[in-house]
Amino acid sequence: MAALEDFSRSAGLAECYAAVRDRTVALIDPLSAEDCCVQSMPDASPAKWHLGHTTWFFETLILERHESGFRPFDPAFRVLFNSYYNAIGEQHPRPQRGLLTRPSLSQVLDYRRNVDARMERLLDHAEVPPAWRTLTVLGLNHEQQHQELILTDIKHLLSLNPLQPAYSAIGTVVRGRPHAMEWYDFDGGTISIGHGGETFCYDNETPRHRQLLTPYQLASRLVTNGEFQDFIADGGYRDPRLWLSEGWDWIAAGGHRMPFYWRNDRPAQAEFTLGGLAALDPASPVVHVSFYESDAYARWAGARLPTEAEWENAADDQPIRGNFSESGRFHPLPATAEGLAQLYGDAWEWTQSAYGPYPGFRPAEGAVGEYNAKFMVNQYVLRGGSCATPESHMRPSYRNFFPAPACWQFTGIRLAKNRT
Amino acid sequence: MAALEDFSRSAGLAECYAAVRDRTVALIDPLSAEDCCVQSMPDASPAKWHLGHTTWFFETLILERHESGFRPFDPAFRVLFNSYYNAIGEQHPRPQRGLLTRPSLSQVLDYRRNVDARMERLLDHAEVPPAWRTLTVLGLNHEQQHQELILTDIKHLLSLNPLQPAYSAIGTVVRGRPHAMEWYDFDGGTISIGHGGETFCYDNETPRHRQLLTPYQLASRLVTNGEFQDFIADGGYRDPRLWLSEGWDWIAAGGHRMPFYWRNDRPAQAEFTLGGLAALDPASPVVHVSFYESDAYARWAGARLPTEAEWENAADDQPIRGNFSESGRFHPLPATAEGLAQLYGDAWEWTQSAYGPYPGFRPAEGAVGEYNAKFMVNQYVLRGGSCATPESHMRPSYRNFFPAPACWQFTGIRLAKNRT
Amino acid sequence: MAALEDFSRSAGLAECYAAVRDRTVALIDPLSAEDCCVQSMPDASPAKWHLGHTTWFFETLILERHESGFRPFDPAFRVLFNSYYNAIGEQHPRPQRGLLTRPSLSQVLDYRRNVDARMERLLDHAEVPPAWRTLTVLGLNHEQQHQELILTDIKHLLSLNPLQPAYSAIGTVVRGRPHAMEWYDFDGGTISIGHGGETFCYDNETPRHRQLLTPYQLASRLVTNGEFQDFIADGGYRDPRLWLSEGWDWIAAGGHRMPFYWRNDRPAQAEFTLGGLAALDPASPVVHVSFYESDAYARWAGARLPTEAEWENAADDQPIRGNFSESGRFHPLPATAEGLAQLYGDAWEWTQSAYGPYPGFRPAEGAVGEYNAKFMVNQYVLRGGSCATPESHMRPSYRNFFPAPACWQFTGIRLAKNRT
Amino acid sequence: MAALEDFSRSAGLAECYAAVRDRTVALIDPLSAEDCCVQSMPDASPAKWHLGHTTWFFETLILERHESGFRPFDPAFRVLFNSYYNAIGEQHPRPQRGLLTRPSLSQVLDYRRNVDARMERLLDHAEVPPAWRTLTVLGLNHEQQHQELILTDIKHLLSLNPLQPAYSAIGTVVRGRPHAMEWYDFDGGTISIGHGGETFCYDNETPRHRQLLTPYQLASRLVTNGEFQDFIADGGYRDPRLWLSEGWDWIAAGGHRMPFYWRNDRPAQAEFTLGGLAALDPASPVVHVSFYESDAYARWAGARLPTEAEWENAADDQPIRGNFSESGRFHPLPATAEGLAQLYGDAWEWTQSAYGPYPGFRPAEGAVGEYNAKFMVNQYVLRGGSCATPESHMRPSYRNFFPAPACWQFTGIRLAKNRT
Repeated sequence: MAALEDFSRSAGLAECYAAVRDRTVALIDPLSAEDCCVQSMPDASPAKWHLGHTTWFFETLILERHESGFRPFDPAFRVLFNSYYNAIGEQHPRPQRGLLTRPSLSQVLDYRRNVDARMERLLDHAEVPPAWRTLTVLGLNHEQQHQELILTDIKHLLSLNPLQPAYSAIGTVVRGRPHAMEWYDFDGGTISIGHGGETFCYDNETPRHRQLLTPYQLASRLVTNGEFQDFIADGGYRDPRLWLSEGWDWIAAGGHRMPFYWRNDRPAQAEFTLGGLAALDPASPVVHVSFYESDAYARWAGARLPTEAEWENAADDQPIRGNFSESGRFHPLPATAEGLAQLYGDAWEWTQSAYGPYPGFRPAEGAVGEYNAKFMVNQYVLRGGSCATPESHMRPSYRNFFPAPACWQFTGIRLAKNRT
Repeated sequence: MAALEDFSRSAGLAECYAAVRDRTVALIDPLSAEDCCVQSMPDASPAKWHLGHTTWFFETLILERHESGFRPFDPAFRVLFNSYYNAIGEQHPRPQRGLLTRPSLSQVLDYRRNVDARMERLLDHAEVPPAWRTLTVLGLNHEQQHQELILTDIKHLLSLNPLQPAYSAIGTVVRGRPHAMEWYDFDGGTISIGHGGETFCYDNETPRHRQLLTPYQLASRLVTNGEFQDFIADGGYRDPRLWLSEGWDWIAAGGHRMPFYWRNDRPAQAEFTLGGLAALDPASPVVHVSFYESDAYARWAGARLPTEAEWENAADDQPIRGNFSESGRFHPLPATAEGLAQLYGDAWEWTQSAYGPYPGFRPAEGAVGEYNAKFMVNQYVLRGGSCATPESHMRPSYRNFFPAPACWQFTGIRLAKNRT
Repeated sequence: MAALEDFSRSAGLAECYAAVRDRTVALIDPLSAEDCCVQSMPDASPAKWHLGHTTWFFETLILERHESGFRPFDPAFRVLFNSYYNAIGEQHPRPQRGLLTRPSLSQVLDYRRNVDARMERLLDHAEVPPAWRTLTVLGLNHEQQHQELILTDIKHLLSLNPLQPAYSAIGTVVRGRPHAMEWYDFDGGTISIGHGGETFCYDNETPRHRQLLTPYQLASRLVTNGEFQDFIADGGYRDPRLWLSEGWDWIAAGGHRMPFYWRNDRPAQAEFTLGGLAALDPASPVVHVSFYESDAYARWAGARLPTEAEWENAADDQPIRGNFSESGRFHPLPATAEGLAQLYGDAWEWTQSAYGPYPGFRPAEGAVGEYNAKFMVNQYVLRGGSCATPESHMRPSYRNFFPAPACWQFTGIRLAKNRT
Repeated sequence: MAALEDFSRSAGLAECYAAVRDRTVALIDPLSAEDCCVQSMPDASPAKWHLGHTTWFFETLILERHESGFRPFDPAFRVLFNSYYNAIGEQHPRPQRGLLTRPSLSQVLDYRRNVDARMERLLDHAEVPPAWRTLTVLGLNHEQQHQELILTDIKHLLSLNPLQPAYSAIGTVVRGRPHAMEWYDFDGGTISIGHGGETFCYDNETPRHRQLLTPYQLASRLVTNGEFQDFIADGGYRDPRLWLSEGWDWIAAGGHRMPFYWRNDRPAQAEFTLGGLAALDPASPVVHVSFYESDAYARWAGARLPTEAEWENAADDQPIRGNFSESGRFHPLPATAEGLAQLYGDAWEWTQSAYGPYPGFRPAEGAVGEYNAKFMVNQYVLRGGSCATPESHMRPSYRNFFPAPACWQFTGIRLAKNRT
């Protein structure tokens, strides 16, 4: 699929709406109502809550303002499914989302159908007003983010079940050998990053602006499981010189000795995947590493993490192709192709850039201004999308962000170096 | 129903088994799979887990030893559904019982049917060996305890849902006026408590032994909501002189200002019940009070909590009648009858007795020895059963026990005094 | 010294007052102002705070009521040095006692001298009114309790210092061999415990009352370090069948594998004492064990802990002699003498009795009623005094109490058994 | 005093050493041994520990390598006074620094004198080798940082004492009116920041490098208490739209409703200072605000925090003059002078820049490489020094850093804006 907005212009906004919304429901197809209800940690949400919240977004931010004779499907949902929008009002406490055995999954699916029917009527105009269109496209992009979270949150839940159940069959890994890692040179200088033009983007990608980069190198692909095993075998988790102080405390407090979903099964190392427990493939990219682990690995490898400007400068003119969620594998693949590979898809790439406002940044007006801006502290930028991201969701200027300890997302490592 | 064991002798053990086991499944009839899966706090367990654990008891403690050609329904269940029996092996961590979206409710019900069929074959003998019978009766009593926990745990879960859903209709309270509280005199002296004779009891009720009691009085009924409202109105929660030091810290830390399920709804006080939110009935017994609150109330009232020996001495020759779970109300009723009322049913009565071993106590042999003995520290004895207890489960010598802060059980207050 | 009150009657109350007060100050002689200021955990208090609080007791409970023209030494001390008397007013938060670098130690010693001079004037009457006498004797007993706490709290503080400093030289252990443990028979029956007569006691020791005891045995001495080493060597800390469930959780959470002050120094086991780090003496009583460890040891040894009634019945007619704080050793000694030894001194003996009110108990009137009664929940009774207790402080009916996990007091184990 | 290194070149390194070391000891002159021993929170350290640690720095990083016949003053101090240098070995746990009543203050002062004498011998050479000089200058700068921490840590300790004691008289605030805030324009463009040349700096200030700045404005002075009162009066702490999400959670969790050391005393607002409790001066800069509060204030004021490059670009050619610790006031003063005021001294200025490596940054070699680099995550850069910073310690390129919630340092707010 092309970028979501292009698709919405070519096929029509209503068709685009239907496609994205249906995709979300398709994602819970392998799950029971029980799977969809439970919350495995405060950072994760139940799939049912994701289904409700994405629907709430359309009902509250579009229908409530633009539907004539608006009446809420259920007034209680305004609070239950509000994530963090203070401008809209109170919120059900995040750590208690998993207590909501009512409304049932089936009621939430009714809610979806109801809102979809009303949205379809709203979008069934010769001329959809631009404000409606903008909010709808925002809502669909928002929905795509939650599609990814449904996958990562359910992965977390299933991983804590001693039965280690699979979300779905994800296919055998084609155990190709990855190409040997090479270094690509970039000259830097005064370059531009950020989103320009009129097409859709989140407010945090603006304004497009210039930055000064010194010459640098990027690795040709993501770090592999095999390479990360070398780091471990070399005592990587036991050498404080490799770690940020906070990272060293983090591995001590959590007893971390390997990436989050690795399992020390004998005889071979295993990895929990959305397809269940699987032998660890040394050729595939390492995923579910924290910022701390990524930074320590880079130091061990005599390299560093890229800045987000370095990444975007390299990715700006590359085709957005890769192992995205559309493939249905939901797991990274080895980078068998030559060239500067895996910039898009497979795994979100930690950058060394703290998530902050671009020079001249202004948050969007109103409630949607809470979407991004208020999180600009103590988070780090990730770039490029993952195997759980829809391809049509991706842009070169796209800024994902998570706190340094987060590792339940499909996060991986691309190395960078200064050119000397 | 008569005492469970009498019933098992009259109707036959297999019939008794079937009746108790069916009753458990009937209790989850008003619940969805989602309701049965979620754990609302570490002290509570999901209904599904209760269904599995009670079945595990029969499979592991009886079938595994006595069924010829025993093969487990699912080997993983041995750990998943082990509550705390170290003699049997590892246990799935208690606070993570709610993460078990698999096995599904439907698989757990299959598990029940499978074990029930195998138990029926085992019990379908002319002469069931005494050891089997003993363990089966123990397992059925155990199951009855979990029937009560299913109700109290689901009440806790639903109470945390902002929708305040009902478990089931519990009928309108017959708003009778309770009789005026009177004091019944007891002479004390050398009396006997504990279970004697050959019929079934838990090990912690033995041996029957003598105790010396000074003359005392017991209140004729449980403390009512209305009386407890007087305590609150008189500043009961604000006067440290009324409270045990630990209780004073407990109300400060938790911000307690009324019983656990009371809600300060305007204009009238409300109470969350298994029938949903209801107006507080001043005539009904106060329930869901902690040991601390019960003790403070008693001090305010110029009285004290009874010892368990005082209670048992009074209850020993009383008929076991009352508002038990068989009524299906699952909520206490006013004590409209005259006399020494409500000794049985309605609400467990906190005693001032720390839960400990009787003189000469010996735990049962083997794994079932872990049933009671290892909890004999920092818990307080409760007596008499509640509206969520099966009547056939009750005995005068029955010792329930919970830690002082517990209030999610149907716990209430009977006052006592010294005779002077 | 005879019992404090006898001494106060023979030598005079003023002399008694001076002797006890001087003793407290003598105890901090080996300590610096820094040692006296720091709080090592919320349960412990700085020595300076003990010095101030015991003085506050006399100033607030006696001088404030009975001194003509009373003016406080410093009005702020009324709150700073109030431990837990809600009847008197606000309290400086217990966990923040160690933040009080001001007032300085020297100011607190001035406070002591000031109050002592005023108390002396008050007691310098031909006829001290009985109420003053009673409160003064209470205050001196209170002071003696804090003398013991000064020692146990400073031991805790110094134990956490990597330099493992000594409080004072405590003398070489006379490495006698303890006598082989024997069992003493007691018939039980209807016996009396609790304090009778007119002499001083705490309210919690009253009223003297009858109890019914079944025949029992008591061990002839305390359990030794060597015997406890056998328990450890036999896997005592690894076998859940030996432990109360709460104790098993406690050793897991705290990583306990030996008594609190034992150190696994090579080649030999060492023990932190008030004389610094010392080789563990197998002949001396094990001390600083929790209720959980004492209970587990007893189970391992095929015995149990005594009830407080069993202990008092045995101790009632024994002379109060033993290794008390007057010896200045501040560490237990082996029980080399024959007979029923060590009932008094050396180590407080855990009983299986939860700390609660005796039948007919009434707390003292007024603020001093908070002294004991409000702690009657989730604590266990200890009997007999320790090497840090003043001998003149002890009585057969004396009830000390601490929560089950406490191990920074000199707590030890005496075994009991049923006679069969 | 000129920059420390200039002073060390003009007056001689030994003189410089003596001056800085003496200054540290002078700072504890108003304090008792008790004041110097206690730790008020894990982030703060006892003054005694600061005295020992700064001495440890010279003994371990210089004497141990360069003194002939080196023998440690006390081998235990190598661990006790190691802050966080893993390359040097184990460390006494940071939260337990306050338990070290031994060594005594007097022993630590002996330690200082001993090391000072040995350092003087080492520096008493015609030609001090460059490596010694570099490490000594680093050690003195390190010592100056701890001079500031002694003041901020003791302020925190005294603030928690209900007596609200003063560290020392700090003089009456000259209640001048601050000048009206004005905006200064900067063109930005390609500018350079970071330390160049051969003079001393920390590794984190290097390399000097170019950045591209868009045109911006800086406020002419720090935000005042009076202005911050307006923010509060306008509901600043109650409006979530003004806050970063994490900041909103922070004020909720901590109950923050005003800056850290403000006290709601009637009738007027008061502020705890190193001179004790004082009436709040509306003209003086607000201090002890967190990054969250600074960011929220800026948003409320229609402005933002500056980046560190914007700050350095403005400060680079300004004289390093201001209210530094040499004045002995230890509290900020109103900005009565005209012009771009208070860039240096008074209060550290929060920037919006996350603390990270400059392009091309390389940590120093060896143990001192742990000085700065390993903290480059989840901290924010502060610029300009405070009233507790020695003037000779300051440079335009100086980067201080603290986590966003920190408010026990003298942290204040300078506003910035985009030029449009």
